[in-house]
Amino acid sequence: MTAASRIRGAAPDDEIIVLEAGRFTSYSACGIPFVVGGVVTGGVEALIARSPEEHRRRGIDVRIHHEAMAIDTGAGDVEVLDEGAGRTFRLGYDQLLVATGGAPIRPDLPGINLPFVRGVQSLQDAEVLLGLAEQGCHRVVVVGGGYIGLELAESFIERGCTATIVERQAQPLGMIDADFGQRVAAALVGHGVEFRGKVDVEGFEPGQVITSEGPLEADLVVLGIGVRPRSELAAAAGIEIGVADAITVDDRQATSVDGVWSAGDCAASTHLVTGQPVYIALGTYANRHGRVAGLNMAGGELRSPPVLGTAITKLCQLGIAITGLTERAAVDAGLDAFSATIDTTTKAGYFSDAEAVTVRLTAERDTGRLLGAQIIGSDSAAKRIDTVATAITAGMTVAQVADLDLAYAPPFSSVWDPVAVAAREAIKLV
Amino acid sequence: MTAASRIRGAAPDDEIIVLEAGRFTSYSACGIPFVVGGVVTGGVEALIARSPEEHRRRGIDVRIHHEAMAIDTGAGDVEVLDEGAGRTFRLGYDQLLVATGGAPIRPDLPGINLPFVRGVQSLQDAEVLLGLAEQGCHRVVVVGGGYIGLELAESFIERGCTATIVERQAQPLGMIDADFGQRVAAALVGHGVEFRGKVDVEGFEPGQVITSEGPLEADLVVLGIGVRPRSELAAAAGIEIGVADAITVDDRQATSVDGVWSAGDCAASTHLVTGQPVYIALGTYANRHGRVAGLNMAGGELRSPPVLGTAITKLCQLGIAITGLTERAAVDAGLDAFSATIDTTTKAGYFSDAEAVTVRLTAERDTGRLLGAQIIGSDSAAKRIDTVATAITAGMTVAQVADLDLAYAPPFSSVWDPVAVAAREAIKLV
Repeated sequence: MTAASRIRGAAPDDEIIVLEAGRFTSYSACGIPFVVGGVVTGGVEALIARSPEEHRRRGIDVRIHHEAMAIDTGAGDVEVLDEGAGRTFRLGYDQLLVATGGAPIRPDLPGINLPFVRGVQSLQDAEVLLGLAEQGCHRVVVVGGGYIGLELAESFIERGCTATIVERQAQPLGMIDADFGQRVAAALVGHGVEFRGKVDVEGFEPGQVITSEGPLEADLVVLGIGVRPRSELAAAAGIEIGVADAITVDDRQATSVDGVWSAGDCAASTHLVTGQPVYIALGTYANRHGRVAGLNMAGGELRSPPVLGTAITKLCQLGIAITGLTERAAVDAGLDAFSATIDTTTKAGYFSDAEAVTVRLTAERDTGRLLGAQIIGSDSAAKRIDTVATAITAGMTVAQVADLDLAYAPPFSSVWDPVAVAAREAIKLV
Repeated sequence: MTAASRIRGAAPDDEIIVLEAGRFTSYSACGIPFVVGGVVTGGVEALIARSPEEHRRRGIDVRIHHEAMAIDTGAGDVEVLDEGAGRTFRLGYDQLLVATGGAPIRPDLPGINLPFVRGVQSLQDAEVLLGLAEQGCHRVVVVGGGYIGLELAESFIERGCTATIVERQAQPLGMIDADFGQRVAAALVGHGVEFRGKVDVEGFEPGQVITSEGPLEADLVVLGIGVRPRSELAAAAGIEIGVADAITVDDRQATSVDGVWSAGDCAASTHLVTGQPVYIALGTYANRHGRVAGLNMAGGELRSPPVLGTAITKLCQLGIAITGLTERAAVDAGLDAFSATIDTTTKAGYFSDAEAVTVRLTAERDTGRLLGAQIIGSDSAAKRIDTVATAITAGMTVAQVADLDLAYAPPFSSVWDPVAVAAREAIKLV
């Protein structure tokens, strides 16, 4: 919808048709856990930025309950299923955007399609989860330790349910280092969530999850394993699929087929540090992809910047953030990397309510070039990840980061900002 | 003391003598308002990072109540007044650091030296202010709208006193734009502080402040006009004094005289954007100056980075931050500058507790190079100034800032971070 809006703005006379298999447009999937938990009131409607009707009033022909079934790039048309009318028709295009999004990963396990096993992706999912939370669903099992699953576990605890996370690894949030993941697990447990690490899920039966450590009773199972690109439609049309099965795009969001573009959780990005294609499903990238694709489809010339995978989450009063590469990821990418970790506080030490924060910077040996960072602490502490993301984008070394003129006042940090303290520590190890 | 510690670390056999006119070392002057307000407990002692005795144990010969009266750079010695013994003696040096700090500006007005007119600089000042706050001092008048004065006004309100700020300008915090200053004034007034703008102070009499709008009753007057460098000792010794009467130093913290160095609130810095000398008295710079001076005095080779004047304060739950140049300052520096301002929230809009934040970016016309920023909002919102400071240091344009991969989750911002939103707005005006 971001792309459609951009086309509308840039090319007022173009005809724009949007095919939406569901009935919602322009909503914040990231907000679902907060609606389920009741922090955000007003139900799932609160997450809608712009309804199909609002888009229509702006001259965008949104057709809900219309599913794109096939693309014929040679003929330049799409086969569409009109679910309401129960008929199929073909719709021609001059320019086509494939914005099929992502889907929760559903492992191929017995019982995976039982109705009590839910993903967290669409507002339809949100409605189901909210309904269950409000009806007093008691036993929730989250499969996998991705951030959306953790956020939902916290939300269901807020609703008075029990919540158990079952994770194959020893700790949740596999994209961050294990010791950071352990601290996240501890915070969840402190909040009343049960965390079961190193446990495999083997299947589902009505009312229970079968695991390598026996059955777990469950009224609801939430899939929190991650997201995969919904690229089947594009793949079937011969559009190039690449990293992690995501649709391959250039920095204009153009696919391998002339006149076909892609944006959002179905499309790949380029990593700023490695220069390699990468699949990272984040709302910010989807939005940016859409903006770039839309302007280019309208004859403009805009480029998507490479990405760092900067992400943040707030769990049980804990803020966790990451940007760029972990040391492990850097080594996997063939870089000679090291990390420096510091523990400090988010206020001057003489404040009795100073909160702990841990910063880990990852850098390239010899050059000292910053490659990534992880921060865990209070929620405002974690947002300091942006300083690091900016420094990585600028190609700064840890010595340059240590020299940054960052804001200081006693209610915010010790004299040196935690990011600068970590950079100082890293300088010693270059 | 930072310099002394650095020399101790780098040159274990060097003799290090520190002359301190008072009796405290290594304290956080920035923390004084929080001790006076009672947010920080434990009295002024809480602000001391390292006492003279602790320094002595580390081999630094700290002599308290010893005041440097004159420097003879030809002979290489200092005339010292030992206040306890009531005698003067000369002390030779191989390398000398002038770290005489800053002093509250005391305007030349009748009654300025009356004992109820106090600065906020030393722990002695802090002891007096804390004592008055605890003894139920009722009517406090702050002269000037600098941030330390505003912080103290808030602190005295917390203690149940009345606090009136008398400021020559229409609004406080002259280093930020007037409309931001007005919002700070409104927050102070909302907290119970009386703010009197466009009022001149004409003098002091016991129990009252004489102003252009008549007398104000006061048990205590706090000077909050700003800080000046205490450079008289250096000037009398023929050491070069420059911008705003601060001691001129190169990026090694060396003064115009061989073997004499300077660091802290008595010394100038170099502005990163203009490349010109600038006097900005901040704890971060003092600490950094000291570190650089100390290592260089011990034979090392370290450079002080140029500064942006990045500053932050928390007043009455409001966070206010600045970095780089305001538009006015940029124009004064001969730059063709413009500003873009946006209002947004610190959480996704569907959170009922989303807080307002305003970001103003200042950039160079034609190039779009970022020159400065001001942020006002919640306290965590203001710390986003660091993203801008990092971007300015990297020489980024507003278009590059709009493309930064900043962290997003609904509890932290709308999909686009306020800094990126402001950069988008600025792009339109380049």
